[in-house]
Amino acid sequence: MVEKDYSEVINKIDKIASKIYDDFQNTEIPALGLPTRTKANIKFDDNLSVWKYGKNTTERNAKSLDGAYMLLRTMYMADFIKEMINVKKSSTLREMYYISEGWDMAKFHSQNESNLLAEDLEVITGCMREDFKLRPEEDGARVIGNLTIEEVTRKNDKKKIHCQDDVGDAGYSIPYNVEPEKITFKDIDADFVIAIETGGMFDRLAENGFDTSSRAVLVHIKGQPARSTRRFIKRLCTEKNKPVLVFTDCDPWSYRIFASIAYGAIKTAHISEYLATPASQYLGVTPSDIQNYDLPTDALTKEDIHALKSELSDPRFQDSFWKQEIKLQLKLGKKSEQQALAKYGLDYVTDTYLPEKLAEMGLAKK
Amino acid sequence: MVEKDYSEVINKIDKIASKIYDDFQNTEIPALGLPTRTKANIKFDDNLSVWKYGKNTTERNAKSLDGAYMLLRTMYMADFIKEMINVKKSSTLREMYYISEGWDMAKFHSQNESNLLAEDLEVITGCMREDFKLRPEEDGARVIGNLTIEEVTRKNDKKKIHCQDDVGDAGYSIPYNVEPEKITFKDIDADFVIAIETGGMFDRLAENGFDTSSRAVLVHIKGQPARSTRRFIKRLCTEKNKPVLVFTDCDPWSYRIFASIAYGAIKTAHISEYLATPASQYLGVTPSDIQNYDLPTDALTKEDIHALKSELSDPRFQDSFWKQEIKLQLKLGKKSEQQALAKYGLDYVTDTYLPEKLAEMGLAKK
Repeated sequence: MVEKDYSEVINKIDKIASKIYDDFQNTEIPALGLPTRTKANIKFDDNLSVWKYGKNTTERNAKSLDGAYMLLRTMYMADFIKEMINVKKSSTLREMYYISEGWDMAKFHSQNESNLLAEDLEVITGCMREDFKLRPEEDGARVIGNLTIEEVTRKNDKKKIHCQDDVGDAGYSIPYNVEPEKITFKDIDADFVIAIETGGMFDRLAENGFDTSSRAVLVHIKGQPARSTRRFIKRLCTEKNKPVLVFTDCDPWSYRIFASIAYGAIKTAHISEYLATPASQYLGVTPSDIQNYDLPTDALTKEDIHALKSELSDPRFQDSFWKQEIKLQLKLGKKSEQQALAKYGLDYVTDTYLPEKLAEMGLAKK
Repeated sequence: MVEKDYSEVINKIDKIASKIYDDFQNTEIPALGLPTRTKANIKFDDNLSVWKYGKNTTERNAKSLDGAYMLLRTMYMADFIKEMINVKKSSTLREMYYISEGWDMAKFHSQNESNLLAEDLEVITGCMREDFKLRPEEDGARVIGNLTIEEVTRKNDKKKIHCQDDVGDAGYSIPYNVEPEKITFKDIDADFVIAIETGGMFDRLAENGFDTSSRAVLVHIKGQPARSTRRFIKRLCTEKNKPVLVFTDCDPWSYRIFASIAYGAIKTAHISEYLATPASQYLGVTPSDIQNYDLPTDALTKEDIHALKSELSDPRFQDSFWKQEIKLQLKLGKKSEQQALAKYGLDYVTDTYLPEKLAEMGLAKK
């Protein structure tokens, strides 16, 4: 069994320690520099077609007591990561927070602190959390379609799983680590991937056999998709060269889901090229669909309106499609849900709505 | 392929329509009676060892316009359920809410209304929502262990799935329908079932191989468990005669999770005998564990204290174990999480805590 080579990761972690050590040797105040992680500091990377951090940087240094504690925590965390790599374990972010109980003065005071430090370490080293053997609580996103995945299991066996024939109706559960050392995509016989926001709609498409009738791989993204889900979609799109279509509710929060899949999220812009799928397209539900299909709606709340206006100034929503749709939605004052298509019966989404939308996008079945 | 016989369900639904029809024939105001669904109206059923509704009843009648609409909706819903049975489809509760757009004056005004009516229909007919082909949004609970499940898939094939050898590391996803026509339990070679609250802890036990080393079937219940998860555990316990141990955080909300698994929930007391597993035992984390294992804690909030006090008067928490533990927790003023055991390292829970707790319960490995 080929195992992942972590020597590069260890090397990069060691460099952080060297930097602090050298600062002490040179009688300088120990410090680490890293990009500022805000909406104002994300720039479109033309080569990668994703949003990345710009040139603004922040410094973590030991000039204050809080800053010194932060650097001490960084050293402890680096040490913990090296130990996990060594004993072939991984840990949830929550577990790491509790592990710090044994770090004396470096103990975290909230999980927010430990999560932020994990992100800092990613930004500084250019590695991913998965390289550090850190993972979030599970998320349970699921896949159904004519796709064979090979997963290296915890017993170090390679297991081939066909996402229709070898799984129950709930589909294949995406594990928290979807890097190449863990899963590889084998055969796929499908024309595109549909990422679906709600479990109800995923199950509807599955029950109606849309994965077979339309040659689609269905991925349930479970609301705002976890990193592993975004990475899974990214790898599937890139390695198997399949279009990715995003099918969500019609509200500003769902557009953010699309943006995080297509362009990357602000929090994780340092790894956008690993997580984002620039080739993905928004399938619906659009504000135009509300009109064209006369869908049941709810009124926009104050928060919805604020979020839509904020999207008008978000660099990820600057093309004419999004500007038009967002302005239309503000004019309508309405939002809708993907399951609202059930107004016309349980088969309407697979018999009428999706075929019409796919035809519009030039993806109709031949 | 043997298919479920729905004639009994249809028969019971038809009886509701007959009752209303007869009321009209007899020039009486149409009405349906059903038990009151409140904490004050649940009683312990000694035969079944679960909590069921008592004798208080409520009447839905057409004396008011709202009541008349409610009966009209009941007729439309009964009709929709019969149609789904007929065309072999199922629908989410959310879809049914939108389906009602076509019911003219009987249209639901909120999903709460449609959910409540689905529960009313269960109470009136003695059937389960699953019999009506209604289901919630998916929940994604997962199973890992030495257990073989046979699932009848959407293509009507029987598929055998071993919950270690035939699944990825994320385990087997429990489908929304776990009735005998959908899944059956084949071979099991394990000593007990552990129902685990958090995904992080489920993944910890899986990574540490606790399912193999301790001969346990691990079920991730995902916080407050969905009906399908509770029904799955109930069937596994009863049909395979295995003890069920519930492993949660140490706070009043987690005790409610235990209570819903062991004794039934107030909202679903009409089907407690299908959902509750009276033989299940609370494994931890207990307030005593906070002291015995010196666990990291957070202070109880005002809401926590209120919930604990309310549990002291809840008929489901009247035995000496719960009274002692809840009183101890109120005295300590602290709560803790199952992942707090990571204070002593990632293996402590499987090497020390669980073996000690299992030994206390007389379930230690021989």
